Amino acid sequence: MIRFDNDYTEGAHPRIMEKLAETNEEQLPGYGRDHYSDEAKALITRLCDNDVDVHFMVGGTQANLTIISSALRTHQGVIAPDSGHIAADETGAIEATGHKVLVIENENGKISAAQIRDFVDGHWTSPIREHMAQPKMVCISQPTESGTMYSKQELEEVRQVCDDHNLHLMVDGARLGYALASEDNDVTLADLARLCDVFYIGGTKVGALFGEAVVISNSALKEDFRYIIKQKGGMLAKGRLLGIQFKVLFQDELYVNISRHALKMAKRLQEGFESKGINMHYPSPTNQLFPVLTTEQMDELSRKYAFQPWEELDEDRKVIRFCTSWSTKENDVEALIADIGKL
Amino acid sequence: MIRFDNDYTEGAHPRIMEKLAETNEEQLPGYGRDHYSDEAKALITRLCDNDVDVHFMVGGTQANLTIISSALRTHQGVIAPDSGHIAADETGAIEATGHKVLVIENENGKISAAQIRDFVDGHWTSPIREHMAQPKMVCISQPTESGTMYSKQELEEVRQVCDDHNLHLMVDGARLGYALASEDNDVTLADLARLCDVFYIGGTKVGALFGEAVVISNSALKEDFRYIIKQKGGMLAKGRLLGIQFKVLFQDELYVNISRHALKMAKRLQEGFESKGINMHYPSPTNQLFPVLTTEQMDELSRKYAFQPWEELDEDRKVIRFCTSWSTKENDVEALIADIGKL
Amino acid sequence: MIRFDNDYTEGAHPRIMEKLAETNEEQLPGYGRDHYSDEAKALITRLCDNDVDVHFMVGGTQANLTIISSALRTHQGVIAPDSGHIAADETGAIEATGHKVLVIENENGKISAAQIRDFVDGHWTSPIREHMAQPKMVCISQPTESGTMYSKQELEEVRQVCDDHNLHLMVDGARLGYALASEDNDVTLADLARLCDVFYIGGTKVGALFGEAVVISNSALKEDFRYIIKQKGGMLAKGRLLGIQFKVLFQDELYVNISRHALKMAKRLQEGFESKGINMHYPSPTNQLFPVLTTEQMDELSRKYAFQPWEELDEDRKVIRFCTSWSTKENDVEALIADIGKL
Amino acid sequence: MIRFDNDYTEGAHPRIMEKLAETNEEQLPGYGRDHYSDEAKALITRLCDNDVDVHFMVGGTQANLTIISSALRTHQGVIAPDSGHIAADETGAIEATGHKVLVIENENGKISAAQIRDFVDGHWTSPIREHMAQPKMVCISQPTESGTMYSKQELEEVRQVCDDHNLHLMVDGARLGYALASEDNDVTLADLARLCDVFYIGGTKVGALFGEAVVISNSALKEDFRYIIKQKGGMLAKGRLLGIQFKVLFQDELYVNISRHALKMAKRLQEGFESKGINMHYPSPTNQLFPVLTTEQMDELSRKYAFQPWEELDEDRKVIRFCTSWSTKENDVEALIADIGKL
Repeated sequence: MIRFDNDYTEGAHPRIMEKLAETNEEQLPGYGRDHYSDEAKALITRLCDNDVDVHFMVGGTQANLTIISSALRTHQGVIAPDSGHIAADETGAIEATGHKVLVIENENGKISAAQIRDFVDGHWTSPIREHMAQPKMVCISQPTESGTMYSKQELEEVRQVCDDHNLHLMVDGARLGYALASEDNDVTLADLARLCDVFYIGGTKVGALFGEAVVISNSALKEDFRYIIKQKGGMLAKGRLLGIQFKVLFQDELYVNISRHALKMAKRLQEGFESKGINMHYPSPTNQLFPVLTTEQMDELSRKYAFQPWEELDEDRKVIRFCTSWSTKENDVEALIADIGKL
Repeated sequence: MIRFDNDYTEGAHPRIMEKLAETNEEQLPGYGRDHYSDEAKALITRLCDNDVDVHFMVGGTQANLTIISSALRTHQGVIAPDSGHIAADETGAIEATGHKVLVIENENGKISAAQIRDFVDGHWTSPIREHMAQPKMVCISQPTESGTMYSKQELEEVRQVCDDHNLHLMVDGARLGYALASEDNDVTLADLARLCDVFYIGGTKVGALFGEAVVISNSALKEDFRYIIKQKGGMLAKGRLLGIQFKVLFQDELYVNISRHALKMAKRLQEGFESKGINMHYPSPTNQLFPVLTTEQMDELSRKYAFQPWEELDEDRKVIRFCTSWSTKENDVEALIADIGKL
Repeated sequence: MIRFDNDYTEGAHPRIMEKLAETNEEQLPGYGRDHYSDEAKALITRLCDNDVDVHFMVGGTQANLTIISSALRTHQGVIAPDSGHIAADETGAIEATGHKVLVIENENGKISAAQIRDFVDGHWTSPIREHMAQPKMVCISQPTESGTMYSKQELEEVRQVCDDHNLHLMVDGARLGYALASEDNDVTLADLARLCDVFYIGGTKVGALFGEAVVISNSALKEDFRYIIKQKGGMLAKGRLLGIQFKVLFQDELYVNISRHALKMAKRLQEGFESKGINMHYPSPTNQLFPVLTTEQMDELSRKYAFQPWEELDEDRKVIRFCTSWSTKENDVEALIADIGKL
Repeated sequence: MIRFDNDYTEGAHPRIMEKLAETNEEQLPGYGRDHYSDEAKALITRLCDNDVDVHFMVGGTQANLTIISSALRTHQGVIAPDSGHIAADETGAIEATGHKVLVIENENGKISAAQIRDFVDGHWTSPIREHMAQPKMVCISQPTESGTMYSKQELEEVRQVCDDHNLHLMVDGARLGYALASEDNDVTLADLARLCDVFYIGGTKVGALFGEAVVISNSALKEDFRYIIKQKGGMLAKGRLLGIQFKVLFQDELYVNISRHALKMAKRLQEGFESKGINMHYPSPTNQLFPVLTTEQMDELSRKYAFQPWEELDEDRKVIRFCTSWSTKENDVEALIADIGKL
């Protein structure tokens, strides 16, 4: 079985494995108070070109619930596209911290500044708004769960709505590398640090064994964040593991470089599908592809390849997700393309 | 200003006020351990014709959040129509207890057994269902927030889905009197007790100063319910106040009789609108009417009458809610009808 | 059975019952937006001599959990004496909103500024404080659950600690009338408004059918408080009921006057016990008495009187609570004293 | 600086690092559905000699809050010693899931069956028990936070109380290896599986990079546990990392063997202290030592060694914690002993 079902099918980038081995016997303080964590934070802070706090966490759902519950009062909710990870894929993790996810219908995984503005205006002009959860935060993903990206202008528009309505803006960057490395992208880490109150840089899906780097720009959200990491179960005793990994990823631009490989593989694969007349359901320029296959095509490919059924368009046409990643092998992509050609 | 904006614009039915005055000096145990509460419970239990527990609570949101949080494990959610009170009008009260409200699109305030079945099947057939809140309860309203009602057959079909999928069925009966008293209704309290795991009988909107009677049929949900009432802030020190009110309401069929008056008033008012060519947006046979008015008509009526804007159909046509109640005065209805005639 | 087991054994003061009856048919807006609520708030605001917000809630546990969850971020806890209502008598209501109650050992129901300072210093000087809930609020009761009171000086000292450590100070005044009316008291409503961030004035135990008036001085805590009342299930549809009651209680000093009666009765009863050589366990100058009885004495009195076992000192000596209230009848006290005399 | 401040100062056992490197490029399914996780579970299940479910989680606080919130209804609390990790060191993590930690005073880190029985009896015989969180679970640590252990007989007595009062028994085994390897220990994994409803085997402090293996015996607690892991942020995308580590630890008895080394080092160190006349505050037979040092001794040692201040006995005498671990170097211990000799 050759796996394209997600972007976490292998372990970590070899340089990370080497560094973990090399530092293994070093005695270090716990809970992220080690020098590797400090160095990794410094690297990220420099790229963010802003006065930010950086914290490392183990995974995405954990980062989402920790950030959101740290930022909201009990009656406040977070706006997200209905396709957003926090709305659709986290077993009610946000609600379990007491907060409603206020969903807006997505288009290709995105929601627009105008949609957000309408939603929030609707709240604040309602005479019975006290009977509704108060929108106080916006959580969008870059790239989205559909592989699409927000442009800098789109993010600036969203930021404007947030400023106008006193909302926090958060970006879930679980796959951020695959946006940063995209030719179509014009949003840098420094842009994110400037436009967001908080965002995170995903490691789990981009070269690390595990780990997300949370970057907080808003000083109100910086306060006491470590307490909340601990409370929500996210404070790793051997915080070094995260520091070391992110130090490796953010030295010599490894993070973006390995992401670029994933995009190259995705582009190659997309061409393979399209040359067979198979179209993409979402216009994704990143590492996730969503071809529309017939049931027969899907069954045929499933003999050799793992991929993820995404959505049924009708009885016979299904949207399927194929992921590439930093670790995707060129041979595997070529084998798949050859098999697509035979469909 | 003559008020039709909701069904709680006055105090309580005179017989309740009398009984409260008459018993005022009586010394009684606290927290609902008094004989009036016992007697009221016995009256309701008899009508439910089933082995039920009855508890009195102060209000609807409180009842909803107490019942739902008592019934669910942390990863479980409650299905409701998107128009349901728990989904739309309670400031995220259910989420604040940790549970996701899983919304299904309503039609005229209702959701069907087939919709629920599809939703739940979708969950249980998903290979990644562990990444989604597990549907474990269904909460619907009788009558609905749009004034419509479920028929006995519809409820039996919903019950069947619940049985097939191990779901609790809860009915929010904040306006239950106005369903019970409707000529179109074929669902009795005994039916509700048989078909639901738990439901409640609204007093606040049907003759009481305040209060809802929670009726629990499912023995698993009976256990320790008083602890949870206390924890959620709903255990009234002078529980007698609820016992006395519900005793009055359920003696001599007062509850249904005064509800019948509201329906008569609503019917009269609906005729008034329709004879002017103003149609109803929802086919409500109960005490809430939803005429579609032009902005001009709305403005004209708002000089003398209070009512609630509900929804904008377009620039000029608005759905408005008018409520009658047990206390609506015939003269006020006639005055309104006369003014509608002049529009 | 003559009841001294608590201070909510009867209904409401007759003037409240009259006013509720008199206003019963008046049509009013819901959710506390009526003119009675406004007038009651104005009366209380004037007595508080400060820029405060006033909100009415149904009960004490509800008020406690609403206030505390409105004021804390997820990682913060509330300091309370181990004898405090929120620590001991609310089924984990505060914890159910996500916050730890940080208990300090009480002396006669009170904790001192020095104890609080030590506790908070202990937190902030700990190198691993991020592993502990952060103390952010102090909740004490006036009078305490043991009937004792804080003096103005004691409260000022507590306030000083709160200022020094950025803590909110909250006073649970479920029985506040019985402190205000005490000869030993030097703390006014205006003092409470000045020294606390938030406190509440209990109606349930002091003349009302039910209801507590929450008084918020701290502007950060004022924001959006009505959302949170609604979310926690405490927003009464007929908010008028609370407005009317508190308007009556705070006109013509009714609140303090009827409290004075309870204290007179308590003093008389204490003399009855002491003249029989029965001593008080706590030095309560308010409406709760805690005589130490032998099992035999307790059994003898329990034939005619209801009271509450409080604590076992040893095999044969038990602390018992007797409450008087605004509604305690002089005859009943005299009868009890006579029976004490016969023990 | 030579570190004895905790038992997670290094990375992982070399065999784990090797296996992680060796398997790094293998493509595997996510979320713990890989064959390494299955094999590790099989190894642990065999040792537990019982029908158990095994789940791997990243850390201890995460395991505690996930297990406890999975097992309790909203009004239920968990009994723990006041020195227990969930009571003292987790930033209110349990309360943040809505549940009160019901503390019992520890003796040397332990609570007895008799203490638990008294506490629970106190609850169930109280006439106002509904006003208190209901004790439904007991959480103790093996070894305890003071380094002590429960004997098999003690655990059987605790189990008996749990059976009598329908309580779940949970053992926090964050340092379980250091109990299992102790000469004084008579409690096996099979005993724990038989006596507990749920417990976990700590990897973070015993040879792994990170990870705890949760073992569930009670079938009611097995249901849907993966949903709750996901909801609480504990479901690692690359679950393989945990499977691989625990497979290595539970092959060839590595887990107990490396623990034995820590105990040998601790014993040697204890002798060093005692030969200098420095006594232990707690009678710990495991890897944590709690010598009582003078401030001068502490300052002297702190120049070269990291250790953790634990408790102040008086102005001049302090309890200090020294930890050994699987990775403690004999040379470091000897150096420390030599320096102790010079104090």
